[in-house]
Amino acid sequence: MSTTNRSTPRTRVGVVGYGVVGKRVADGVALQPDMELVGIADVAPTSLVAVSVDRGFPLFAADPSALPGFQAAGLAVAGDLDDLIRECDVIVDCSPPGIPEKNLARCRELGTKFICEGGEDHALTGFSFSSFANYEAAAGRDAARVVSCNTTSECRILSTLDRAFSIDDAFLAITRRGADPANIKSGPINATIPVLPGFSHHAPDIITVIPGLNVKSMAVIASTTLMHVHILRVEVARSVTKDEVVELLASTPRVRMVSGESGDSSTAHLIEWARDQHRPRGDHWEVAVWEDSIAVDGQVIFLTVGVHMESVIAPENVDCIRAMSTDAMTASQAIYRTDEAFGFARDRDLYAVFDR
Amino acid sequence: MSTTNRSTPRTRVGVVGYGVVGKRVADGVALQPDMELVGIADVAPTSLVAVSVDRGFPLFAADPSALPGFQAAGLAVAGDLDDLIRECDVIVDCSPPGIPEKNLARCRELGTKFICEGGEDHALTGFSFSSFANYEAAAGRDAARVVSCNTTSECRILSTLDRAFSIDDAFLAITRRGADPANIKSGPINATIPVLPGFSHHAPDIITVIPGLNVKSMAVIASTTLMHVHILRVEVARSVTKDEVVELLASTPRVRMVSGESGDSSTAHLIEWARDQHRPRGDHWEVAVWEDSIAVDGQVIFLTVGVHMESVIAPENVDCIRAMSTDAMTASQAIYRTDEAFGFARDRDLYAVFDR
Amino acid sequence: MSTTNRSTPRTRVGVVGYGVVGKRVADGVALQPDMELVGIADVAPTSLVAVSVDRGFPLFAADPSALPGFQAAGLAVAGDLDDLIRECDVIVDCSPPGIPEKNLARCRELGTKFICEGGEDHALTGFSFSSFANYEAAAGRDAARVVSCNTTSECRILSTLDRAFSIDDAFLAITRRGADPANIKSGPINATIPVLPGFSHHAPDIITVIPGLNVKSMAVIASTTLMHVHILRVEVARSVTKDEVVELLASTPRVRMVSGESGDSSTAHLIEWARDQHRPRGDHWEVAVWEDSIAVDGQVIFLTVGVHMESVIAPENVDCIRAMSTDAMTASQAIYRTDEAFGFARDRDLYAVFDR
Amino acid sequence: MSTTNRSTPRTRVGVVGYGVVGKRVADGVALQPDMELVGIADVAPTSLVAVSVDRGFPLFAADPSALPGFQAAGLAVAGDLDDLIRECDVIVDCSPPGIPEKNLARCRELGTKFICEGGEDHALTGFSFSSFANYEAAAGRDAARVVSCNTTSECRILSTLDRAFSIDDAFLAITRRGADPANIKSGPINATIPVLPGFSHHAPDIITVIPGLNVKSMAVIASTTLMHVHILRVEVARSVTKDEVVELLASTPRVRMVSGESGDSSTAHLIEWARDQHRPRGDHWEVAVWEDSIAVDGQVIFLTVGVHMESVIAPENVDCIRAMSTDAMTASQAIYRTDEAFGFARDRDLYAVFDR
Repeated sequence: MSTTNRSTPRTRVGVVGYGVVGKRVADGVALQPDMELVGIADVAPTSLVAVSVDRGFPLFAADPSALPGFQAAGLAVAGDLDDLIRECDVIVDCSPPGIPEKNLARCRELGTKFICEGGEDHALTGFSFSSFANYEAAAGRDAARVVSCNTTSECRILSTLDRAFSIDDAFLAITRRGADPANIKSGPINATIPVLPGFSHHAPDIITVIPGLNVKSMAVIASTTLMHVHILRVEVARSVTKDEVVELLASTPRVRMVSGESGDSSTAHLIEWARDQHRPRGDHWEVAVWEDSIAVDGQVIFLTVGVHMESVIAPENVDCIRAMSTDAMTASQAIYRTDEAFGFARDRDLYAVFDR
Repeated sequence: MSTTNRSTPRTRVGVVGYGVVGKRVADGVALQPDMELVGIADVAPTSLVAVSVDRGFPLFAADPSALPGFQAAGLAVAGDLDDLIRECDVIVDCSPPGIPEKNLARCRELGTKFICEGGEDHALTGFSFSSFANYEAAAGRDAARVVSCNTTSECRILSTLDRAFSIDDAFLAITRRGADPANIKSGPINATIPVLPGFSHHAPDIITVIPGLNVKSMAVIASTTLMHVHILRVEVARSVTKDEVVELLASTPRVRMVSGESGDSSTAHLIEWARDQHRPRGDHWEVAVWEDSIAVDGQVIFLTVGVHMESVIAPENVDCIRAMSTDAMTASQAIYRTDEAFGFARDRDLYAVFDR
Repeated sequence: MSTTNRSTPRTRVGVVGYGVVGKRVADGVALQPDMELVGIADVAPTSLVAVSVDRGFPLFAADPSALPGFQAAGLAVAGDLDDLIRECDVIVDCSPPGIPEKNLARCRELGTKFICEGGEDHALTGFSFSSFANYEAAAGRDAARVVSCNTTSECRILSTLDRAFSIDDAFLAITRRGADPANIKSGPINATIPVLPGFSHHAPDIITVIPGLNVKSMAVIASTTLMHVHILRVEVARSVTKDEVVELLASTPRVRMVSGESGDSSTAHLIEWARDQHRPRGDHWEVAVWEDSIAVDGQVIFLTVGVHMESVIAPENVDCIRAMSTDAMTASQAIYRTDEAFGFARDRDLYAVFDR
Repeated sequence: MSTTNRSTPRTRVGVVGYGVVGKRVADGVALQPDMELVGIADVAPTSLVAVSVDRGFPLFAADPSALPGFQAAGLAVAGDLDDLIRECDVIVDCSPPGIPEKNLARCRELGTKFICEGGEDHALTGFSFSSFANYEAAAGRDAARVVSCNTTSECRILSTLDRAFSIDDAFLAITRRGADPANIKSGPINATIPVLPGFSHHAPDIITVIPGLNVKSMAVIASTTLMHVHILRVEVARSVTKDEVVELLASTPRVRMVSGESGDSSTAHLIEWARDQHRPRGDHWEVAVWEDSIAVDGQVIFLTVGVHMESVIAPENVDCIRAMSTDAMTASQAIYRTDEAFGFARDRDLYAVFDR
């Protein structure tokens, strides 16, 4: 673990809404040498909350109604939501729809910076964040929205291709997973569901972080819990070769080149690799690019990528906290520090691209 | 049912290889007033074969080794493969890979016309058939290949769009089903599998029937047994409107316009509709187009279609038999007759498009 | 088709609630020579309703609020619910929970007999029906409940075993399907779910039709849409042999002996058989018993059965209509007539068992 | 971590066959303070092998034919299989069927103790091991077989119930998972498959470790990759209460009491808990017992358990190494040490039950 300069105070962070995203953001924050996880806030005494209290994460009651449940479950409560907000420099709000709007207002009253997730509308904060697209633009803001796993992944890929080759037109055909792994109530069991009507929301969401990009997307939902898979068709401003594309993406942080030929035949293989890595929760923070899916036809690039919809945004949330709360680091320094703490940093030089 | 002119002899047809495709072709042939199903040939005494013998389909031994099994199962055998070939004007061979090559040679020796399916290479017959793309070109041939359900469906869509709007560039992103419904050995159970490397075989296969079409395809495999789903991106030679596209496809035989808004939310709903129709085997011969998936951006058309990979080719096989064995009908007459016998004919006028 | 004595008026039947069960009961009624399907009643202009109107089933508005929708969809409406009830001798109510209670009251007011399905509580009618267990007990009643597909299947098996061998103790371990095929919203996608707490409702429901039977059941829910599978452990009053059990069940109507060895390896194979039979909707009205699952250990019989949860109750609903509305036939005559009309009758002699 | 007496040499262990089981046994051995993982042996340069070499596990070539592949992949090779066998006190062989037979012969020639897994026949070693059933019987043996995840789980449950209440008769109805998570080739996608013919192999396998137990089992295969679920019906020698059963199982090591009421509604929830625990690979070494599934009817106990078929046997393999290679510890000491190193030890007192 890298050491922190004792003279620099650590950024104090609270995570509100402790579900699929919140638990990963909290873990990510807890890994950072320059951040302190002040606590987590939720409303239900789930086994997940109990596990986290065991791990030493202070628990706050996101709502007064949660107190009896926490007490009945024998879970010590460190305070209420206002307490958490007051003690923090930044709140990351991963609550279900409707809640972040209220919490943003309270954070503004109490002078705490605020981050929400991609499930919220761009309009809530007026600023959507992607480390690859607009790290510096977060500086000085009091509120930001970290875009979804799909959008974050596409920003990694499309902003990289755009910077290198200048994108004229992009089209995404997405095969989504049907539900999170532990969501047993949602289907489909045996069907494929087109996302209707017309274009899916994915492309418009990309444009919140890469304004002006000419991109369209359509999607279907499949019977799987593991990952989304995107097929991309990207027209660029000049003819390229497959080797150029491979080299570019292979040298991009948070992109993992995989290959069916080498055994990574499916999303299940990608997750198995993350399990074998002993990654916490078997998380796959990188967007995976199948190298042997890449094909080029003149100025058109085709490729297929895998998106672990549970975990891709964890590093970007940590980046966003830094981008909003400190000017002591360049983008490349900040993003590298995140990856180093997560344990999946690439060569430091590869991060130079973030300091454009 | 339309009546047959008694003075016209019926085309005598045999179906070899009695599985997912063969059983549907046999049923389709048996429905035609101008055809006679001479028999089916297979090697195993499956319950499927027994059901068909019960239904009055004569059974031939596709290989001498099959005889003891048929006898043990109490199934009357009408002859061997040569007997069937000799008695027929046309053999439709739905056997597993490797077998059709041998059977084609034998058919040529015995002077019987021969049709194989999309699992075989185009080179085997040198001619691939799609009613929508090249009905007349089958006349006089002694061998033809009916392209797969995916390709047949795309020929219905793409040849229609091409004729109306002239296609400059087409891209298909396909979410395939993992296995036929009764194939319990194949997965995936919980994964999405990119079809690697690079482009999938679907686009090259379309070009066997629509030479010169500029089309590319990529595919993933999902955990479902029901249908394939294709997302299409089609650039055409002029700007079009969504209404033009809807009107065009809605008036095309063997295309069924469906809508999520009206309740056809998924492939499972399409199949349930076919079951409710009391279609044999719940078959969905039409390619389904989700009307509310259609989007237009200048000269680019986007849409999503569903392909029942078990049954789409049944009508085209029947067409191909007619195209090869009679010149008494125009394309539109022949194709309309097929649909009438299957029980899903549209207005006769809509078929005029086939007589170009 | 058997002919009907013209001097006997046909029983006039209405089906209320036109979903998974209702559409099958309506089809079953329409097949019976001694019944007339007066109409179906529903509230939504679904494609299913449209298909049925096309087929000639008069449509009634189950609620006045349904009229605008039916009119907008161009569906002719024959009357309201009271009209349907008044015109019928028997109403079969397949509506969602809550509705049948109201409809029963109205039927009683208007003097029409009433049948509801297994989703309702036994207490609603005070009498639960199974052709195998209590056909004659329905005579003269004004209300009955046809038990669910699971319970109906178990009544076929358990009442047969009980009559032959006298059951001391029965235990069912049920692997349920997760959802109906076209229910894409329900999971699980990749999980097995124990039905909690404790025993499942299946055994108590069996006791509503076979009072005093010593039976317990537990269940899990699996990721499939096709069929339930029951593993049974049945202790009987004397030692039996496997041959005795096989012979008994093989000679029981509405039980289909299948065998993995002969190719019926799974629920998918059972459904494929029904599709190959050209059964409407690929329905599998019989409970399937895997012959090679049957094992005997002294006085304990073990076996595995498959239950098509969509269609098993269709014949029993038709039986129940007859049992309540006519005394012109014995149980065996009535049940045989149902099976004959459905097209899956066995030898007439096998039905003698119903006239005990 | 507990410290090791420096004067005691550590047991030197090699793991042959590096797949689903082998990688978990290797990780488990590497955690033990009194064992040294000498190396792993395999034949293919998979990404899994590469990950392990990165982690510092020496790699041996299980077959000379593997050398070119390892060299091409840049993987350092520490020796061949004989080298590994010679350097080890114990070999744990997790190779595919057929290989362990050869390796056992070679181990005997070279004087190294040998452990194989439940996929092998009991006859290969003549001794099958379960920590709960026969820990002490392994002492002094040169070969043992650790029974499968299903059997190991049932030994934990049944030997515990048998010791407390004396089992007269047990019946297991098992809903198996269809495939390991990364096995994308195996189905079923949408079916339930009875395991035929007759009884499943599970009960006879239990009897290899608990001789004389009166137990039968039947099984179906479901479309899931996560866990097996067993429904148990157990007759014991006296009447018991549900509280007795709960208290007994709740105080048994390697059994985890869960409850649907508290949110552990399915196998997916069990795995999510293990992921939240940051267990390596999200492994769930305990057999899970749903407390709210437990029901008692006089002398008959009913319950439902979940079995993580990938990982349950990891602790038992480590136990077996100790049981065969040292007499310095009692069973309870050895088993407690394993659990302590894995990080899921319970109160030390609970292990006293192993020293009978």
